[in-house]
Amino acid sequence: MSELTIWTYDWVPNGPRGFVRDFRLRWACEEASLDYTIKTVPFEGRETNHLSRQPFGQVPFLTDGTIELFESGAGLLHLAHKSEALMPRDPAGTADTLQWTIAAFNSIEMVTQPWWFVGLFGKEVSELSGWVESRLGQLERVLGEREWLAASRFTVADLIMADVLRIPKVRKLGGRPATEAYVDRITDRPAFQRAYSDQLAHFAAGDLARKEPRVRT
Amino acid sequence: MSELTIWTYDWVPNGPRGFVRDFRLRWACEEASLDYTIKTVPFEGRETNHLSRQPFGQVPFLTDGTIELFESGAGLLHLAHKSEALMPRDPAGTADTLQWTIAAFNSIEMVTQPWWFVGLFGKEVSELSGWVESRLGQLERVLGEREWLAASRFTVADLIMADVLRIPKVRKLGGRPATEAYVDRITDRPAFQRAYSDQLAHFAAGDLARKEPRVRT
Repeated sequence: MSELTIWTYDWVPNGPRGFVRDFRLRWACEEASLDYTIKTVPFEGRETNHLSRQPFGQVPFLTDGTIELFESGAGLLHLAHKSEALMPRDPAGTADTLQWTIAAFNSIEMVTQPWWFVGLFGKEVSELSGWVESRLGQLERVLGEREWLAASRFTVADLIMADVLRIPKVRKLGGRPATEAYVDRITDRPAFQRAYSDQLAHFAAGDLARKEPRVRT
Repeated sequence: MSELTIWTYDWVPNGPRGFVRDFRLRWACEEASLDYTIKTVPFEGRETNHLSRQPFGQVPFLTDGTIELFESGAGLLHLAHKSEALMPRDPAGTADTLQWTIAAFNSIEMVTQPWWFVGLFGKEVSELSGWVESRLGQLERVLGEREWLAASRFTVADLIMADVLRIPKVRKLGGRPATEAYVDRITDRPAFQRAYSDQLAHFAAGDLARKEPRVRT
């Protein structure tokens, strides 16, 4: 039995499939050839049914033997410390990977996520749009000069940055050729494709289970 | 000479003093009794004058010998790996500290920062306000049950969570007694007080340098 378990919902509506954040941990495990098991908490009642394991009522969380971790960023860094496939072991390479991993969360996703979130309600807040434009413009300059974000090789920083940038609302912005080529390149990786089809299959199985709730255990 | 250098601006206006994010690294070094030097980049022209060292034109960045790191979160985790005062060394304690450190950045600051940012322009976006209320409510439940976020002791997770929560707009929200007591408790620490007065003194010295630019070198 695998020591690593990635926890996600048993089912989600069609919209978020392929984007539920257990995907990040699946992808990282696929890149690192780490065995893992998927387990679930119910989507229904998610706001309160697993607060003891994820205090904001979200997924994913990760168990590694007796260790539990919530926050996809914490899970990714935990996996990166387990596998050199995700983060180089020399101090400079580790630091470079760490800074760009945090940048994906705290300089890019911090800006794109609220902009996307208010958009769900049909709102356009000019200051948030301007913030997104500014940060993505700065990132375009960086990606125009290099193939990988950190350490001149694929790392978990590329994984999380590409995952943040691949949301449809960001991709539709266009006009950033280096960023577009980067996201295409990173999401073409076989490990991405495996994790993506696995997540779709997982939630498709959830559809079946909802139709036949008495048959399954 | 100290190996650790924290880079910040030479000067900022009065408003952000005490909150410029080199503060986070100063505070961490004070908690861990790590020697450090402060160096500066010019505030004027900051959008472009140090992009090679901080690609989003911000501060802080940290140098540790030949290693360079931008992103305050990356700097904090780098320092935490240097000192047990910031993060316990047992795997469960490390994981607990890591998840709550990332939570401060990606579950709390990701929500409070855009809400604060649009407020600078006099805007109130109800969805952002609701998001803040929801996340701070979930955090209040957690802080009502424990003294420290992680590992039953002070860690870098408390440092960053308290730093995110101490911004005046969040503190004015009130109505969360456990969170208010927590922020009071963490910011009462002597290391916080030293870092805070040091940052104020640093920018006050910047005032003098701007008045007498030809006298100083």
